[in-house]
Amino acid sequence: MKKASKPKLSIIKIGGGIIEDPILCAAFCNVFIKVKGPKILVHGGGKSATHLAEKLHLKTQMIQGRRVTPLEHLKVVTMTYAGWANKEIVAKLQSLGCNALGLSGADGNSVLAKKRNPVPVDYGFVGDIIKINDSFIGGLITQDFIPVFCALTHNGAGQLLNTNADTIAAEIAIAMTPFYHTSLWYCFDKKGVLSNLEKETVMPSITLRDMELGIQSGTLHAGMLPKLSNGFNALNKGVAQVGIGDNNMLENKGPFTLLKH
Amino acid sequence: MKKASKPKLSIIKIGGGIIEDPILCAAFCNVFIKVKGPKILVHGGGKSATHLAEKLHLKTQMIQGRRVTPLEHLKVVTMTYAGWANKEIVAKLQSLGCNALGLSGADGNSVLAKKRNPVPVDYGFVGDIIKINDSFIGGLITQDFIPVFCALTHNGAGQLLNTNADTIAAEIAIAMTPFYHTSLWYCFDKKGVLSNLEKETVMPSITLRDMELGIQSGTLHAGMLPKLSNGFNALNKGVAQVGIGDNNMLENKGPFTLLKH
Repeated sequence: MKKASKPKLSIIKIGGGIIEDPILCAAFCNVFIKVKGPKILVHGGGKSATHLAEKLHLKTQMIQGRRVTPLEHLKVVTMTYAGWANKEIVAKLQSLGCNALGLSGADGNSVLAKKRNPVPVDYGFVGDIIKINDSFIGGLITQDFIPVFCALTHNGAGQLLNTNADTIAAEIAIAMTPFYHTSLWYCFDKKGVLSNLEKETVMPSITLRDMELGIQSGTLHAGMLPKLSNGFNALNKGVAQVGIGDNNMLENKGPFTLLKH
Repeated sequence: MKKASKPKLSIIKIGGGIIEDPILCAAFCNVFIKVKGPKILVHGGGKSATHLAEKLHLKTQMIQGRRVTPLEHLKVVTMTYAGWANKEIVAKLQSLGCNALGLSGADGNSVLAKKRNPVPVDYGFVGDIIKINDSFIGGLITQDFIPVFCALTHNGAGQLLNTNADTIAAEIAIAMTPFYHTSLWYCFDKKGVLSNLEKETVMPSITLRDMELGIQSGTLHAGMLPKLSNGFNALNKGVAQVGIGDNNMLENKGPFTLLKH
């Protein structure tokens, strides 16, 4: 008897640069609604958070590209990620007939995390993921909802935690692999991983070895590393496809970078 | 054959005063989790919104106790209601073993509204409710989720709208009456409707006629009117019980005010 193949599930992550620009956001939503089959959206919102923090005279500290989140900044990121960014995109998707449901990791206990050890670097209220609630997320998908996750988790003891959106997307993709043929798409404002920043040559594929060589030679942009390391982790843990690119990637129209073993 | 009685459903609305004070909020959550049977929480957050607006040098304008919401204020209320207030209480309830799911009216298209006519008074981006998505809310309850609504709706065309939390609670209670024996509880920092503001004498019950007399004589506090008018509307449209009081009301421990025909 032929084994039934698993249904497809696309996990699409967009950066703050898309969500914070009304024109880019509208263009993305129009592409996103056409992606066939069950899908999950994960979004950041870091630029808006930095902007609000500035207005509130809070200084944003970054260490190795990662945001340090003291309590007053946690309030700022909760307001911008779960509030403005999440509800803006949910309302936009609903207007396009897409039954979006906005979520933080606390909602339905969907993403449980623990506060990162303050040694050697104290990042404040930043969470490392412990468990994705696959049955909750699977239930939403079965009921044809489109979950829209912001970059917040909780520790199960009442504490919200700021958590990298690239990592949330990868961990959700990994957690759903027993039930779905999952693909993970990092969608941002570049066409993919560039082999030459000036000429903007898109690498059609990249291996872990290519990444390591790129880091050594300095040709790989540091901003790509979180996507690549999360992406290779997902690939190693059973996610079928991992891509990095712009809106065209989702329509299979233009060049993009596929991560390869 | 005996007609099967409808299951009970409690809709509990809390004011900003509770949600914005960590001690009051913790006390409320500990009472809320003990309320038996399916339940829905609706919350405001007006004081936090006013506070954030002040920090951002935005002037808050109120007309007859209602917030005027220009676009920049809509962003502020979205951040405070759907962001900080909603996620704080969801995380807190989750820590107490209550499977809370935070929602704006855009999520799952749960509360559809239209922007209020700017004539005779332009309230800005304020919504009047058109439709409660009873099947979505009923589905969540059937799956043992505790929906937690903030005071935001959407117009179905991508626009979020600021909407009175007292009204959202009443409209949800009304919309669920065909399927549930619904009760509506306005929970705030007073013990109920007071017949004498100085002596704090709680009226055990109040009729529409009592309310009208209280308005004429000036003995009724103006701040009670939105709760009372929404409450009487709910009572007239099939909601079985409507109460106004503090946490003790939910535990049936102390005096509170019951609305009567």
